[in-house]
Amino acid sequence: MTDTEPAPAVRETAESIATMEIRGAATIASAAAEALAEQAEAAAAADATASDPAAFRASMRAAARTLRETRPTAVSLPNALRYVLQRMEGDSVDRLRLSVADASEAFVRQLDRAQEDLGRVGANRLADGDTVMTHCHSTDALACIEAAVEQGKSISAVVKETRPRQQGHITAEQLRDAGVPVTLIVDSAARRYLDEVDHVVVGADSIAADGGVINKIGTSGLAVNARERGVPIMTAAQTIKLHPETLTGHTVEIEMRDESEVIDAETRGEIGEIAVENPAFDVTPPRYMDAIVTEQGQFPPESIVTLMRELFGEGAAEPWAEP
Amino acid sequence: MTDTEPAPAVRETAESIATMEIRGAATIASAAAEALAEQAEAAAAADATASDPAAFRASMRAAARTLRETRPTAVSLPNALRYVLQRMEGDSVDRLRLSVADASEAFVRQLDRAQEDLGRVGANRLADGDTVMTHCHSTDALACIEAAVEQGKSISAVVKETRPRQQGHITAEQLRDAGVPVTLIVDSAARRYLDEVDHVVVGADSIAADGGVINKIGTSGLAVNARERGVPIMTAAQTIKLHPETLTGHTVEIEMRDESEVIDAETRGEIGEIAVENPAFDVTPPRYMDAIVTEQGQFPPESIVTLMRELFGEGAAEPWAEP
Amino acid sequence: MTDTEPAPAVRETAESIATMEIRGAATIASAAAEALAEQAEAAAAADATASDPAAFRASMRAAARTLRETRPTAVSLPNALRYVLQRMEGDSVDRLRLSVADASEAFVRQLDRAQEDLGRVGANRLADGDTVMTHCHSTDALACIEAAVEQGKSISAVVKETRPRQQGHITAEQLRDAGVPVTLIVDSAARRYLDEVDHVVVGADSIAADGGVINKIGTSGLAVNARERGVPIMTAAQTIKLHPETLTGHTVEIEMRDESEVIDAETRGEIGEIAVENPAFDVTPPRYMDAIVTEQGQFPPESIVTLMRELFGEGAAEPWAEP
Amino acid sequence: MTDTEPAPAVRETAESIATMEIRGAATIASAAAEALAEQAEAAAAADATASDPAAFRASMRAAARTLRETRPTAVSLPNALRYVLQRMEGDSVDRLRLSVADASEAFVRQLDRAQEDLGRVGANRLADGDTVMTHCHSTDALACIEAAVEQGKSISAVVKETRPRQQGHITAEQLRDAGVPVTLIVDSAARRYLDEVDHVVVGADSIAADGGVINKIGTSGLAVNARERGVPIMTAAQTIKLHPETLTGHTVEIEMRDESEVIDAETRGEIGEIAVENPAFDVTPPRYMDAIVTEQGQFPPESIVTLMRELFGEGAAEPWAEP
Amino acid sequence: MTDTEPAPAVRETAESIATMEIRGAATIASAAAEALAEQAEAAAAADATASDPAAFRASMRAAARTLRETRPTAVSLPNALRYVLQRMEGDSVDRLRLSVADASEAFVRQLDRAQEDLGRVGANRLADGDTVMTHCHSTDALACIEAAVEQGKSISAVVKETRPRQQGHITAEQLRDAGVPVTLIVDSAARRYLDEVDHVVVGADSIAADGGVINKIGTSGLAVNARERGVPIMTAAQTIKLHPETLTGHTVEIEMRDESEVIDAETRGEIGEIAVENPAFDVTPPRYMDAIVTEQGQFPPESIVTLMRELFGEGAAEPWAEP
Amino acid sequence: MTDTEPAPAVRETAESIATMEIRGAATIASAAAEALAEQAEAAAAADATASDPAAFRASMRAAARTLRETRPTAVSLPNALRYVLQRMEGDSVDRLRLSVADASEAFVRQLDRAQEDLGRVGANRLADGDTVMTHCHSTDALACIEAAVEQGKSISAVVKETRPRQQGHITAEQLRDAGVPVTLIVDSAARRYLDEVDHVVVGADSIAADGGVINKIGTSGLAVNARERGVPIMTAAQTIKLHPETLTGHTVEIEMRDESEVIDAETRGEIGEIAVENPAFDVTPPRYMDAIVTEQGQFPPESIVTLMRELFGEGAAEPWAEP
Repeated sequence: MTDTEPAPAVRETAESIATMEIRGAATIASAAAEALAEQAEAAAAADATASDPAAFRASMRAAARTLRETRPTAVSLPNALRYVLQRMEGDSVDRLRLSVADASEAFVRQLDRAQEDLGRVGANRLADGDTVMTHCHSTDALACIEAAVEQGKSISAVVKETRPRQQGHITAEQLRDAGVPVTLIVDSAARRYLDEVDHVVVGADSIAADGGVINKIGTSGLAVNARERGVPIMTAAQTIKLHPETLTGHTVEIEMRDESEVIDAETRGEIGEIAVENPAFDVTPPRYMDAIVTEQGQFPPESIVTLMRELFGEGAAEPWAEP
Repeated sequence: MTDTEPAPAVRETAESIATMEIRGAATIASAAAEALAEQAEAAAAADATASDPAAFRASMRAAARTLRETRPTAVSLPNALRYVLQRMEGDSVDRLRLSVADASEAFVRQLDRAQEDLGRVGANRLADGDTVMTHCHSTDALACIEAAVEQGKSISAVVKETRPRQQGHITAEQLRDAGVPVTLIVDSAARRYLDEVDHVVVGADSIAADGGVINKIGTSGLAVNARERGVPIMTAAQTIKLHPETLTGHTVEIEMRDESEVIDAETRGEIGEIAVENPAFDVTPPRYMDAIVTEQGQFPPESIVTLMRELFGEGAAEPWAEP
Repeated sequence: MTDTEPAPAVRETAESIATMEIRGAATIASAAAEALAEQAEAAAAADATASDPAAFRASMRAAARTLRETRPTAVSLPNALRYVLQRMEGDSVDRLRLSVADASEAFVRQLDRAQEDLGRVGANRLADGDTVMTHCHSTDALACIEAAVEQGKSISAVVKETRPRQQGHITAEQLRDAGVPVTLIVDSAARRYLDEVDHVVVGADSIAADGGVINKIGTSGLAVNARERGVPIMTAAQTIKLHPETLTGHTVEIEMRDESEVIDAETRGEIGEIAVENPAFDVTPPRYMDAIVTEQGQFPPESIVTLMRELFGEGAAEPWAEP
Repeated sequence: MTDTEPAPAVRETAESIATMEIRGAATIASAAAEALAEQAEAAAAADATASDPAAFRASMRAAARTLRETRPTAVSLPNALRYVLQRMEGDSVDRLRLSVADASEAFVRQLDRAQEDLGRVGANRLADGDTVMTHCHSTDALACIEAAVEQGKSISAVVKETRPRQQGHITAEQLRDAGVPVTLIVDSAARRYLDEVDHVVVGADSIAADGGVINKIGTSGLAVNARERGVPIMTAAQTIKLHPETLTGHTVEIEMRDESEVIDAETRGEIGEIAVENPAFDVTPPRYMDAIVTEQGQFPPESIVTLMRELFGEGAAEPWAEP
Repeated sequence: MTDTEPAPAVRETAESIATMEIRGAATIASAAAEALAEQAEAAAAADATASDPAAFRASMRAAARTLRETRPTAVSLPNALRYVLQRMEGDSVDRLRLSVADASEAFVRQLDRAQEDLGRVGANRLADGDTVMTHCHSTDALACIEAAVEQGKSISAVVKETRPRQQGHITAEQLRDAGVPVTLIVDSAARRYLDEVDHVVVGADSIAADGGVINKIGTSGLAVNARERGVPIMTAAQTIKLHPETLTGHTVEIEMRDESEVIDAETRGEIGEIAVENPAFDVTPPRYMDAIVTEQGQFPPESIVTLMRELFGEGAAEPWAEP
Repeated sequence: MTDTEPAPAVRETAESIATMEIRGAATIASAAAEALAEQAEAAAAADATASDPAAFRASMRAAARTLRETRPTAVSLPNALRYVLQRMEGDSVDRLRLSVADASEAFVRQLDRAQEDLGRVGANRLADGDTVMTHCHSTDALACIEAAVEQGKSISAVVKETRPRQQGHITAEQLRDAGVPVTLIVDSAARRYLDEVDHVVVGADSIAADGGVINKIGTSGLAVNARERGVPIMTAAQTIKLHPETLTGHTVEIEMRDESEVIDAETRGEIGEIAVENPAFDVTPPRYMDAIVTEQGQFPPESIVTLMRELFGEGAAEPWAEP
């Protein structure tokens, strides 16, 4: 390997991410952080980089770029890379290697327990006897409710079916299995049931520096109604969902999904020439969200930017870019 | 027939309404008003009532009660009866008969052109180039959009599918047929598309004296978001939808429909023991609705009570009740 | 008696009102309406007025002025006078007398049943199982809750003590006697309990043409919080509380009561030189009130002006003023 | 003259309005009402119409059309015509003529004292020591402030200059002449001074059936800020400003004025190719306006539609149209 | 003493706190921080811990636990422990001891001047001539007003009596002594007087990570009204009031106090079987609070979590827990 | 020079700032930071301070005070001094000198690229095809729009003229030169055009610790309307605009400018005795601002305090004050 050619372990991980052998936000992030540790190990042993701190750093950046390019739109992957590179420091290759190993290990260790930690934080917001409303399916949101049940609290749930893909059915099933009495409703019935609900709990696809929560389409409309009805609403999201590119003002592009999720071809044919739009997500402004619950504790959405900068850097530049 | 026994025409109409041979809000109302005119004709000819104004009035009230009982929950039926009985006046049977005939005819004549008149009023609120958003399927709401097209305005529509029964498909088809470009979305995508919309147009199942609009579930949540996004929203509803019982504080009972509309039995079986709730309607407070468009012109929801009292009486007592 | 000198019955009633032998808003109003009928009777029999319609009218206005002056700040008194004079019509003294007698009788008859009618209207807004919150003590507000109980609904109440005079204690006792479970709280605890409350029910001292509700100090702050928490709030008030002078923009002067209601002299002495202010009422803007419940039905506050004009005239001039 | 040819007096008035010899909302309305009375006089004397009620009515409609066409966009003109035709009734030409004469006279009499009456109503809303804020120049708004001064109240004013035509200068001068201390500010400074202001008082160009107030550009932005700062805002407008066409949903077209009012040609030339837009008016939604003050008393904007229908008819059809 | 047995000084302090010989949030916190410094001194001299950094750390944790257990619900006590343990660092016992001594001293030094520093910050927000409104009695809030007076500003106060315990009387007296003109009002009169007030100043019982301010019952209702009236509101609170357990989502339990504070036994007996609820505190959401004023400067409530983490750690674990 | 006498370079810079030879927020800040570096150089070479760290520090503080006093009201000047002094650290004069040199250089380097970096961040918030609204003239705001154009996005602008000084004309010209189609409007027309606008972009005169944005008069009223219309609004401001004195509660004094900017003497003379007020700036509360865009990334206004403390210290004391 040349001085900036990634180690075999990095190449393997990159390929597995690209082929989706490795998938899921947390699994990808974990693998990427570990690959960087292996790169550091390899670079510390390689002739070209073993005694040249600058070359070592360059090889780390190159490895990060290789990993980054496998999935340009994932959020957890660059967060893993940022976390580790951000903490790479030292004047010698040995210290550099050690700092990378430590950061990689810390990142993976936290990630392993993130959902459990987050669940406990969210559960602490819920009281015995509470009814929660859910939208879509989020394992982070479920972790909060399940942790509350484990704390011995009696929790009921109003579950929105969440068209077009009806992920509410999965949520209903998992809550049911956790012993939570479930009432299933269509999305349009949400406001009517808010008066019987103590907390709305949703997940997040990603979270922006300005406090906006990007989540399944319908979240923002639900949040506006929750505020109007006086019902607190929280987002449960691990910190790997924080979107550092938004620090520099970048907006998150909203995926448009296939129309067949909304209407089957036959019905559409009968109706005639219409357009069907199927955006996957929307953005909830911070003023309609009461708290973001992470494994690092809870935050008002307006201050999540501080956590984002602390964990993943200030975002003015990508740490894997050549200086 | 005894002095208070309804005329055969009344009995026939009552039966046809009861068996749903006669159905649809406007058709029922029309038939009821006409039956009262026939009752007046018969009573003016019958021995027991021909020369006794009090007996004539009693026979009219009895006929109204007979008609009223066929469908206790319809709104248009009692409105027709109220409209006519409210205008019955005179000291002689002849004048009473005449006033009933006139009121019946006026009511039917207005009803015949109500949707067309209402459509023009609603169309006047729309401008060339506007995009409207619709919820559910309402012929009154459609009449506004179609009248705007007939006025030569170019109108586009964002149509919410309106789970669980997807009446948005019917709306999409009819707008498409009227030459209106249609974009179909799931209910949860509404807030995201509000920024591209100039007016929200909905119908009403009924309208309460306190200005609340009872309409298909999801209307109130849409209205709250329309206000938050600064988009005007109007309800298109003929005056037969005004609910005079609400003058005396009665609330409108919201129908709960079958859970099979929301989830098929098989999926439900797989999920396990959950409840499914399927309310058909909700109530939008007047502060979230900009205008109610009727065939008598447009009104802020807060003043619809005045029209209700003018048309159908003050509601303290039912005009068919024995004094 | 001269042509404009009030009949003895009028003078007696005036004196009894002035000496507070006759008191209470409804009792005063009733007595005043009856006095006008007696004046009409007397004037129709007196030489100077028996055959001169203009003189008859002048004597009625004079009688009204005599009654009006006994209590310049009461609202129900001028409303009674307005109601009757407003309906005085005819070309002959006989017809004038009759119209006054009819109007007086109609007014008294309605007044007799007003609270009961109003109570039923308000009760219809409440549902079985509801918890209501009350402020101060209002027999109109209580009539709504008691009527709901009579309708077989199970109602609970959160009663604000209502400093400084603690009229909440009277409310608590009367609700308790009506079989309503009561929870007493201090005024400051209201917002905290709003989440457990389905309706706020208050009375009114008077109601202004712009929809403002003048009621016991603290009502407006409670209303703002009820709106923020999504809890509907209604004012229960007989139509004799409508304040026709506000039609012409007059504001209602708020009584400042003695400081000893707020703090006893000893404590005040210990504290030192402070001011104590003790306003009796405040004004709740119509946008924070959902409905005004009267014996004529319920109204959004924004349209109460229509009822006010219908019952008591358009207020541009006082009907007892000399033209 | 043929049976539907207008009387000479009508033709003269029409011409004077068309040539703007007669101008000003009130003057036009007065002249039009009087012309109709003269038409009635003439028609009652003319062969073709003297004994034919239908022909008489037709001639009145024709006269109204002639007057109407002189100024298609004025609001006060059709209001005058509506007011009179609306009150034309009777089975004989004589009764018809009389009803027209009476209506015409009543209209003119009210109009003569409208501003004074309105001023007193508005003044009653103000308290001694109040500071008011004004926007643009409105004699109706000024009438309120001046009447308050005449009532002996001490009033101060914060006057917005109201770009682009700086009508605030006229307001400042007239208030100054009335003894009101004036502070002049630029439009952008309004929010900052709202905290020192007790009432905002504006006029209206016209008022819509949905409660929207059409007034000088900038009114709506001021109203939104007044609400946010908790400062009450009222519109002072005579009832001839009510816009009956809006009953049927018509929106009021906003005049676009010349760009030279905004920027002089030279500066514009230096800047280069830009557009300049100069809309004259905007629409304030009723929820941001506390009261509309008219010579008939004050109304919440949401109920002005009732007054509009009472004065000028229900607007479903124009009373001068052939049936 | 064994390696983890607290030093005598710690045991004494613990006992004095438990017996409430030492009380008051600041005094307890000070004593706890000093006890830890004494523990460090003792542990550095004891055989078992003098040369074993791990044992030294364990002894510090044990001491902290001993102190913590004396008052499980106080906020300032764990904050003192967290502050010191958080800053304990070093590889040798000597460095550990030194870091504890430094942290303890810094904490106490800051605490000593906290109220004075905080007062100046709060005073800087007030302007000469301002009127402030207060709720309950808070020495931190008073410090702001008194500092403003010391800065030569003329300040007036509207003091809410604050039922049920009328702590407003104490506030009134202390402000009066500071030369501040005071007007005392009942709690319900607050909204009415907000229009005459420039700032609302309240204290805090504790402050949550989500920006919620826990303070005397009635604060949240006052804050909602202050926002509606456009009046800024600030919380004055030393940083020892920040509640680190809320970082992990824990909610603050609201004490229910005895009913006798609300109603005397005799009156209660007369009323009959009612419940009386007497919650001591409520939670004001951050969106209704403009600033939190601390001795470290002012913060929007939404960012107080950052200060909390900086001072007292990230709260994922209690620093005195065994790892 | 004595131990605390500033070096000649400092004195020269101070004089140039005082005489306004050096002006503009960024230029002043740059010069001040560089002067401190020169002072450090000089002090490290001077006898009295070369080997006495305490004396060296004292000379740095003295130099800072000299610079500070030249312009007591500028914000960027003390920020430069704070930034550098805040980072002065070390036990030896050599390390102290080096830390000052490094901090000075870092500060100047960041400042040089601040507007460009900030522009990119702001540009990222804009989308192709967006229309922006501007108020006044701000090079930071323009940088965002121009960067968006450079990114290839098509941007249009609605430019408020911004009375009284019409800086909108400069903005119009510069945007025009950048190829942005411009529509110029008067300030009062803003709300009407908000419906056609995707983003409002304004600059800032300074930004307070509580998230308030101090900017040209009219900004706050625009922001309130932008929120009401659902249009996002951002402030573009380099971090030298952050106002650290506000950390301690200080409010920013608003300059009152000459009345001749508002009205020429002649017109004023004609109007008579009026006051003219001409405040230069106003304060927009954080709840009406969506984001503050800086060269360090974007922040919700509620968390800008964190950046302020990070860059310029905690503000409890001025770092140039003698301890």
